Amino acid sequence: MEFANVINGRRAVNFFDPNKEVPENLLKEFIEAAAKAPSSFNLQPWSVIVVKDQEEKARLRKLAWDQPKVSEAPLVLIVLADRKAWEEGHPFVERNFAEMIKAGTMTTGQRDWFKNARTSLYGYSDEAALAFACKNTGFFAMGLMLAAKSLGLDTHPMDGFDQNGVRKAFHIPEHYWIPLLLAVGYFDKNKTLAPPKWRKSYDEIVVRFDK
Amino acid sequence: MEFANVINGRRAVNFFDPNKEVPENLLKEFIEAAAKAPSSFNLQPWSVIVVKDQEEKARLRKLAWDQPKVSEAPLVLIVLADRKAWEEGHPFVERNFAEMIKAGTMTTGQRDWFKNARTSLYGYSDEAALAFACKNTGFFAMGLMLAAKSLGLDTHPMDGFDQNGVRKAFHIPEHYWIPLLLAVGYFDKNKTLAPPKWRKSYDEIVVRFDK
Repeated sequence: MEFANVINGRRAVNFFDPNKEVPENLLKEFIEAAAKAPSSFNLQPWSVIVVKDQEEKARLRKLAWDQPKVSEAPLVLIVLADRKAWEEGHPFVERNFAEMIKAGTMTTGQRDWFKNARTSLYGYSDEAALAFACKNTGFFAMGLMLAAKSLGLDTHPMDGFDQNGVRKAFHIPEHYWIPLLLAVGYFDKNKTLAPPKWRKSYDEIVVRFDK
Repeated sequence: MEFANVINGRRAVNFFDPNKEVPENLLKEFIEAAAKAPSSFNLQPWSVIVVKDQEEKARLRKLAWDQPKVSEAPLVLIVLADRKAWEEGHPFVERNFAEMIKAGTMTTGQRDWFKNARTSLYGYSDEAALAFACKNTGFFAMGLMLAAKSLGLDTHPMDGFDQNGVRKAFHIPEHYWIPLLLAVGYFDKNKTLAPPKWRKSYDEIVVRFDK
């Protein structure tokens, strides 16, 4: 599918056909395509919980403003941003360091440099660690929506949910922020899709704050 | 360009041809394509400062670990995430409300509902407001990188900079977080591009925390 058609054609779809499953191979394909996203020091602070079970979707729906799409979509991803993904000893930090040594882009002697760089950028405040995790997971999540679209799937990113309620219900450890829920499936063709919403223009996006 | 080639072919490019400008029409095109990203209540909390001037790039480079690509790339975007973009009275909140009334998706009587919904999701803590702004701006920024690639451009997202230093040097108001700098241009073909870095597999991305 042409890139322009994907980025211009992607819509947040409110109505999913509850009878059309998302094949496992497509799920895997769009998740791995999205995971090509760049991230700070390649730390990839993203994870997902795949919610397919009807009882689990019902539990999630109660915590998500009772939005029907949560139980109507064949699957919902709980997207997670790991605020500790920069910390020394984190399994993927260790993996990264090992991979960089293997690739010859870092030496074993640079372990402290690598630790200090991560700490100076993300470890100096809770705010910086949260921003790091949510920004990079935002890259990944945009990839999920676009890659799903390129495979003929539809999605709906959701913010309307109880952050702490979802955390408790799915036993998600405290160090993960939940930036969004993502409903995935096929648009219900018996419904009408609303026209696209307005967007800021180039001139509204570009700013200057000169004194 | 085929979507799969864009998402699989996008690379963080370290070396830019300093003699190849980014035409104004392409800059506008990829920014407006990226702005098709979804956002919470369509609040679009993203903005960019376009840095093209050599003196400004030099100033930015000093605040960005002296990375040569900051001054070698023909342009660098300072990407901004507006932590106040959900607040009552914000110009784009007002614009959103007016547009929803025009589209018939909200009534004038729902002003309080809309305000309370935003406040309950983003206004309950500084953390929630920051996560909202960085997540949505992450969507937008991934769109920038992919849309630029689809137009033959290369990019490099950067985290290695002094958040407060850049804020001061460009007079950026406190309520903006700076999630990334994005160098944009054309890969310098005299240089060698390193092989792609490893990525977490599907099985490493999908998690469960069942008790």
